[in-house]
Amino acid sequence: MNGAECLLRTLLINGVNVCFMNPGTSEMQFVSALDRVPEMRGVLCLVEGVCSGAADGYARMLGKPASTLLHLGPGLANALSNFHNARKARSPVISIVGEHSTQHLPYNAPLTADIPAFARTVSNCVRVLETPDQMGPAASAAVEAALRPPGQISTLIIPADFSWSPAGSVGERVDVRPRSIPGPEKIRHAASILRSEARVGILLGGSSLLRPGLLAAGKIGAASRTLILADRNAARYERGCGLFAPKRIPYFPEPANDLLAGLAHLILVETQPPVSFFGYPGQRSLVAPEDCEYHVLASPEENGAAALEMLAAELGADAPPAETPPSNARSVPEEGPLTPSVIGQIVAAMLPEGAIISDEMVSSSEAVWPHLGSALPHSHLPVTGGSIGQGLPVALGAAIACPDRKVVALEADGSAMYSLQALWTIARENLDVTVVIFANRRYRILDVERERTKAGSFGPRANDMIDIGRPDIDFVLLAKGLGIPATRVDTSRAFAARFRLAMEERGPSLIEAVLCS
Amino acid sequence: MNGAECLLRTLLINGVNVCFMNPGTSEMQFVSALDRVPEMRGVLCLVEGVCSGAADGYARMLGKPASTLLHLGPGLANALSNFHNARKARSPVISIVGEHSTQHLPYNAPLTADIPAFARTVSNCVRVLETPDQMGPAASAAVEAALRPPGQISTLIIPADFSWSPAGSVGERVDVRPRSIPGPEKIRHAASILRSEARVGILLGGSSLLRPGLLAAGKIGAASRTLILADRNAARYERGCGLFAPKRIPYFPEPANDLLAGLAHLILVETQPPVSFFGYPGQRSLVAPEDCEYHVLASPEENGAAALEMLAAELGADAPPAETPPSNARSVPEEGPLTPSVIGQIVAAMLPEGAIISDEMVSSSEAVWPHLGSALPHSHLPVTGGSIGQGLPVALGAAIACPDRKVVALEADGSAMYSLQALWTIARENLDVTVVIFANRRYRILDVERERTKAGSFGPRANDMIDIGRPDIDFVLLAKGLGIPATRVDTSRAFAARFRLAMEERGPSLIEAVLCS
Repeated sequence: MNGAECLLRTLLINGVNVCFMNPGTSEMQFVSALDRVPEMRGVLCLVEGVCSGAADGYARMLGKPASTLLHLGPGLANALSNFHNARKARSPVISIVGEHSTQHLPYNAPLTADIPAFARTVSNCVRVLETPDQMGPAASAAVEAALRPPGQISTLIIPADFSWSPAGSVGERVDVRPRSIPGPEKIRHAASILRSEARVGILLGGSSLLRPGLLAAGKIGAASRTLILADRNAARYERGCGLFAPKRIPYFPEPANDLLAGLAHLILVETQPPVSFFGYPGQRSLVAPEDCEYHVLASPEENGAAALEMLAAELGADAPPAETPPSNARSVPEEGPLTPSVIGQIVAAMLPEGAIISDEMVSSSEAVWPHLGSALPHSHLPVTGGSIGQGLPVALGAAIACPDRKVVALEADGSAMYSLQALWTIARENLDVTVVIFANRRYRILDVERERTKAGSFGPRANDMIDIGRPDIDFVLLAKGLGIPATRVDTSRAFAARFRLAMEERGPSLIEAVLCS
Repeated sequence: MNGAECLLRTLLINGVNVCFMNPGTSEMQFVSALDRVPEMRGVLCLVEGVCSGAADGYARMLGKPASTLLHLGPGLANALSNFHNARKARSPVISIVGEHSTQHLPYNAPLTADIPAFARTVSNCVRVLETPDQMGPAASAAVEAALRPPGQISTLIIPADFSWSPAGSVGERVDVRPRSIPGPEKIRHAASILRSEARVGILLGGSSLLRPGLLAAGKIGAASRTLILADRNAARYERGCGLFAPKRIPYFPEPANDLLAGLAHLILVETQPPVSFFGYPGQRSLVAPEDCEYHVLASPEENGAAALEMLAAELGADAPPAETPPSNARSVPEEGPLTPSVIGQIVAAMLPEGAIISDEMVSSSEAVWPHLGSALPHSHLPVTGGSIGQGLPVALGAAIACPDRKVVALEADGSAMYSLQALWTIARENLDVTVVIFANRRYRILDVERERTKAGSFGPRANDMIDIGRPDIDFVLLAKGLGIPATRVDTSRAFAARFRLAMEERGPSLIEAVLCS
């Protein structure tokens, strides 16, 4: 058994059975080993950022790592921006990077680069394999590190000769350390604040936005005047009819300030004090009031849902949530122009139960978000690290993770172009992914950010730098060129008809929704 | 004058008048300033790797830097793989990266990342601006650093508030330090070796592959039995009829070993001892004989062409080169199946004088290369750092640099998919670029590398990981979707007809050449 096979077997023993890959010469042994270790599913991607984004989406849905297999420093470099997002999502990922063989490394060949330096930008756990017999233990340790709460990217850099050399034994199955339960003093402290007369908020982040956390938070909200809030950049929300709906902190600081106005205390669950996405001239970065006090109920490493359950019990809060989203007839708007809000209504009305939404709508997001709250229960995968280009790869990874669930990627046109190559892998794997392109032919969010950063009015040359309609990008041709059936629509009725069809059928499709301007 | 305008004006004073950009919120002031500083040409790219690759191509043609404008750490991350190639090409580039405003940085917003750590992976000169009044001097210093021989990526990280704050004065015009001339002892030493009875080679790299260096090397070759060689990963070759043609070191070690067999001495001109691209089991990495002695005539920082001229004078070698490429009737092959060699013949026959070739043919490269030597004189831009995805962006940058020259991108299908987004900017700028896609539907080079790395025969699952024909990638649809006219051909006659048309007309076009398998 060579090193490559040893690595794959060690990953498998630890439940890691998917590898998003873009291999090169230094990874040939891993590719070859796929036929000897058929339980490992190789998923080929045309560019490395698709691999890292897919691994993020996979981890957000399953809470366990996929692996990625990348070629030397530059291959890893292409994956870093989506690894940045995965890091902010606290997604566990096993990042395997091939290195030149040890005898070749001193000679400064063209592809020679400082791979650990690339890796450390997104990964606290970076290991270069030093001898071939370490392969099994190193792979086990990489899995342990990836899964250490709250989850991280664990990088294993493997010189090519250690993958072709005989390896030692397959590594052990590692114990997954569960998230620790916050101590009773944290619970009592939070309870005492909630019992005070002050205006108090609880901000849910991380895993506390899944069902158990929402249920407990809903009870606390029902039993008190507490404002229950949601981190807008958490890895995953469970949402929809019948689920308690915390209020998501808005993107821009003014509405965020308004929502949080008057809060004397903010209790943090698996998250940090909320901050605006960007800083603006003369504006504070923290969006809670200046004199707001922060209290940690559960750190990102701890079990926020368990903490909320204990807090609910401490408060005697066992009534169902006072608030549920408005029940919704799920009516579809009549014929009319296509706006983000109209798309939101239609998607909410037609989304099947258990669907997964990958959200990279950018300027369309705030208009679509409220509608989705009344859809059937589903998972929503938001922007986490803000690095553009995550939407399609995250949808791909979520679809690999959950083959029985419909995946809908809601994607801005500008953003779609950073990782468009994901469509090919979605086609290749025949995944049940519907991509909706919000086509406004512009980096629309920058029209707003320009004003906010007081960059003045744009002249024609500046304006041209945020205009992506010259030439028009034809997403129907692009999708078809990558093997995905696609159509363009520009009215609400046409969009509703196409989206309904996509929800009824299985398999990949793309709808280019041309927004009215 | 705010900081952004001060930066642009300082760049302009120093002759830097092109900026390949993918801006975001933190760069809005730079975009806005484009209308106040209209001499700065902004070139919008849909993904950051296109910006960095274009800056590389630009620098290789003009020997002066373009700037790039990227958004925060993740934006820079997407540019790193092509910056790796630019670093290996020793291309001067001014990399401007926007950072969060200083007041925002401590709060760990979603996009917060360690930008200097990203930058240092490809750049020895990384500076974070510390006060707004440093802008002018810092920009001047960045230009000086980029142009310091042999050329490098010079990174300037600018907090958003320093671009919107009032700046100090515009920075000074910096003196460009010329490459130094090697001392006479180096010349005499090389001459003494050349006068010996031993078998001697001279390996040309860096700027010595431009016309003056070729001319001098040709004289030396004519006056001695010296083997004149070319670094295969240099930034740029001047090639074609009438130009002295050093022998390029082959990609694989065996033919490289054969070419260099018997060499007792290898004289290095702006390059290092030649090494194979990858290391293989049981093979040496250096391709010259084990007992070959290396001698530096000119280091990468020095002027290799001047050194060669002095060496020729020292040797009394002033006769014209003994070797020129065979004169060529530039005949076009008859109708038949399309192979890389046939494409090479046709391109060589039809390439106009002064054309620029961007070469990312990968497995097709060795078959095409010899034919191009008999084309009319042209510039050839090879793979430098080996990071896939440079071909289309380098073509884009070269076309911006040299608008009056025809640019031909010879591009493998797999490679084209890493930076396909470059096509959109080529269309948008209406550049005179002809893209030829070598479509074999496979990461073909990996069929060879699999054997070479002794990864055994591939089973069906492994084979599937290097097969990009499932589904087929339709480059005609992809190009049209990005605004470029495109056609598919699969015979030599059809290719010749299309390529001739592309050479006669101006403007962008793409030919998908389906290779016979």
